[in-house]
Amino acid sequence: MITPISKELHTQLQEKIDYKTKPIGALGTLETIAKQIGAIQNTLTPKIVAPTIVVFAGDHGIVKNKPVSPYPQEVTQQMVLNFLNGGAAINVFCKQHNLNLHIVDAGVNGVFEKSDVLLDYKIAMGTKDYSQEPAMSATEVNTALEKGRTIVKKIHEKGTNVIGFGEMGIGNTSAASLLMSYFTKTSIEACVGSGTGLDDKGIQQKATILREVYDKHINNINTPIDVLQHFGGFEIAMMCGAMLEAAELQMTLLIDGFIVTSALLTAYYIDQNIIEYCIFSHTSGEQGHRKMLAHLNAIPLLNLGMRLGEGSGAAVAFPIIKSAVSFLNEMATFKSASVSEANE
Amino acid sequence: MITPISKELHTQLQEKIDYKTKPIGALGTLETIAKQIGAIQNTLTPKIVAPTIVVFAGDHGIVKNKPVSPYPQEVTQQMVLNFLNGGAAINVFCKQHNLNLHIVDAGVNGVFEKSDVLLDYKIAMGTKDYSQEPAMSATEVNTALEKGRTIVKKIHEKGTNVIGFGEMGIGNTSAASLLMSYFTKTSIEACVGSGTGLDDKGIQQKATILREVYDKHINNINTPIDVLQHFGGFEIAMMCGAMLEAAELQMTLLIDGFIVTSALLTAYYIDQNIIEYCIFSHTSGEQGHRKMLAHLNAIPLLNLGMRLGEGSGAAVAFPIIKSAVSFLNEMATFKSASVSEANE
Repeated sequence: MITPISKELHTQLQEKIDYKTKPIGALGTLETIAKQIGAIQNTLTPKIVAPTIVVFAGDHGIVKNKPVSPYPQEVTQQMVLNFLNGGAAINVFCKQHNLNLHIVDAGVNGVFEKSDVLLDYKIAMGTKDYSQEPAMSATEVNTALEKGRTIVKKIHEKGTNVIGFGEMGIGNTSAASLLMSYFTKTSIEACVGSGTGLDDKGIQQKATILREVYDKHINNINTPIDVLQHFGGFEIAMMCGAMLEAAELQMTLLIDGFIVTSALLTAYYIDQNIIEYCIFSHTSGEQGHRKMLAHLNAIPLLNLGMRLGEGSGAAVAFPIIKSAVSFLNEMATFKSASVSEANE
Repeated sequence: MITPISKELHTQLQEKIDYKTKPIGALGTLETIAKQIGAIQNTLTPKIVAPTIVVFAGDHGIVKNKPVSPYPQEVTQQMVLNFLNGGAAINVFCKQHNLNLHIVDAGVNGVFEKSDVLLDYKIAMGTKDYSQEPAMSATEVNTALEKGRTIVKKIHEKGTNVIGFGEMGIGNTSAASLLMSYFTKTSIEACVGSGTGLDDKGIQQKATILREVYDKHINNINTPIDVLQHFGGFEIAMMCGAMLEAAELQMTLLIDGFIVTSALLTAYYIDQNIIEYCIFSHTSGEQGHRKMLAHLNAIPLLNLGMRLGEGSGAAVAFPIIKSAVSFLNEMATFKSASVSEANE
């Protein structure tokens, strides 16, 4: 169970912010974030400790049989190797902001050598093709959720209190579109976008394929976990479990783009209290994301047309969150700086 | 004269970006910024060297006689002291991002002790009250522009190639509104906002005052420099000269909010080539800023409802610019990482 965030310090946090040497409200969203993190940590002096990005990777059976992505399935494995070798965008941004980075093999169709960065939680060599059968078994979906929780517990034990989520998996915008369609009650056609770069014809084809997938399984779906089981990727299901655990542990969650938000959407319909622990890093260029965010009443920090995944949006937005905590802790007050206040 | 930025490497920069391990265009605005800075520096491996924020401070004669701000004039001096003591928002954000910070006394109504951070370029103890006479003399405006150029030359000599502009001056949203009205041909009423926190009645009063000021001087104004002379603050005029020099020296300019953009607007009507050297950090919560940006076809990086000035928006946006340069220099290519490319 996720505890609602404390309202205990709301007034004191607001006062602390308003006494800073600046006009009331002049730091805009930074003030909102400062209050949110103060409330999550239930303190007037919140701290960001050992901030960490976790990238969940998994493969999708659909990719082998249907043209839902312009990239071949082996790119998932290749990109995980790229992460492990430090060459991807997420590596660059984590290095820039001194963020810990873990890559989780949730179900990549490939085998990796041991590495400090890689966390091996593989469930299978990719999901089943959901155009034929459910993406995973009931056991697998529960295992994925549990493994996600375990990963976060271990990270939390090391002191981390801010966790960003990212993903890698060729075909996972298809899974995210199916989740979005179900939870936001939006036609699948309106949820499908170009992903890694489909053209208009490709998008239409993807929508047609996913329409059939949706209709094939919908009568067997009754719960959020059923949705994950039929449509999910292992990386999405594991991320969903990880998010639920992170909120239970009262960490601050940084939400990345379209696929990460689809995992959160699932978590939200499992426990709506999760939303108060979330900071939305950016609006993805993937067209469905905007509607997904609106469904959650979420206002993201950035709108830079990024659509890379990997947690890259969360990493790029991270310094803004740090700015929010820093001004709250470090700025002088009108009194301490002997600055005159505004006239009534 | 400002040289138009080089188009020489345009194709090569685009290719370098497209060979990175990510779908085409997937880093959105970061790619635009990477190309711009590459073009400004005319290299495929741009670098950010000794990035610096310069905050120009000055007082405005109008504040003594008319109610255009809820804060008394002495707050300018008090806030400069706050900057020098490290207690303001801009100090916190510069420290966070390892940005050099200089405070320029362009014309504050007060005297400061010597300090490494403070640059003394004071022209007078504040401008004249433009409800009575031009804000400055013809000599003063030219001195301000020249001093701005000198400041930037010295900073550039130390190696800095990215410079952010900030300001402090009680009453300077009034000056900025007058500049905006003139250059964007927008009624003064549509340019006036709450500044540091006027209520609706205060805004209306401010608009009435500035309407009279505008009408009083408009017939004596023929050039952008006349505009600065009649309506400007010393900090705005000095910033304008500083911006022109920075672009001549082919530095990258980070533009902050409403007042900084009004200085840029003036510089733009002196030499339109300046615009290619500018990165717009954020959309201010001050209502006129959005229209000012639209007039310049500028798309800012952030939209966080900040309206503090001090260069705080430029400082908070800085890591995004660094992310752009970092991915360009540090990310692996499809070839170097052995990642398969998309199907045609």
